[in-house]
Amino acid sequence: MPTDETDRDGYLLRPIGRVESPLTRRDQAPRQGDEGAPDAWLVLDAAVADAMRDLTAGTDVLVLTWLHRADRQVLAVHPRGDADRPVTGVFATRSPDRPNPVGLHRVRIVAIDGLRIRVRDLEALDGTPIVDIKPVLGPAAER
Amino acid sequence: MPTDETDRDGYLLRPIGRVESPLTRRDQAPRQGDEGAPDAWLVLDAAVADAMRDLTAGTDVLVLTWLHRADRQVLAVHPRGDADRPVTGVFATRSPDRPNPVGLHRVRIVAIDGLRIRVRDLEALDGTPIVDIKPVLGPAAER
Repeated sequence: MPTDETDRDGYLLRPIGRVESPLTRRDQAPRQGDEGAPDAWLVLDAAVADAMRDLTAGTDVLVLTWLHRADRQVLAVHPRGDADRPVTGVFATRSPDRPNPVGLHRVRIVAIDGLRIRVRDLEALDGTPIVDIKPVLGPAAER
Repeated sequence: MPTDETDRDGYLLRPIGRVESPLTRRDQAPRQGDEGAPDAWLVLDAAVADAMRDLTAGTDVLVLTWLHRADRQVLAVHPRGDADRPVTGVFATRSPDRPNPVGLHRVRIVAIDGLRIRVRDLEALDGTPIVDIKPVLGPAAER
């Protein structure tokens, strides 16, 4: 059954799990995962165990998160918080502050232990809700 | 003000616009944009005009959509709908049917006309809600 939840003025994103990370403050987090982010765990809910069963260590995946500490009212920022850079519309930046603060993170899976997935280089804060995991697409001929 | 909307059991995704496309049925749509998808328009709401003001024609962006016709109950599928391929957990596939059906599309901007953005190779159906636009990240040194 297609579930078209147009209740109120949007769609309800339901977290499928949470990030466990040593990063607890926004000012500790690197701007992107490949700029020195630590390893972290993706801790998934038992309800989605069947959806994660074919993930494997050693592969890269895209993790989508909900950046729950972001400010959704912000439409333009100094990129990377650098006051010397001109104010830029957020759709041309990776600012966490944006109308729908969905985080997009490419990470390497290093281990899987039941519902826990160990990943390399994730800049999301401890407790960040996870909303989806997707494979990185290879060339069209190999899909 | 950080808006931590933990009302009910999730977060409210508010569309920032809609896709205008000649694709109206799921069986018409290619599996991925680079497999023969048509050009389409991203028609943004006036409320986010300041967020889009620095997008430019000729660049690639990531468009996030809400695949509103997807089935959120599905946890495993035959990849690409091919019954000869073993059933696979959706987090290891790009199936639109998944717990949070956020679509991720890399497209080339070919023109911008006010709140309308013309893009190449978008496989989303006509009317699909748009939730975010992000730049493609280049090498860390160029950010």
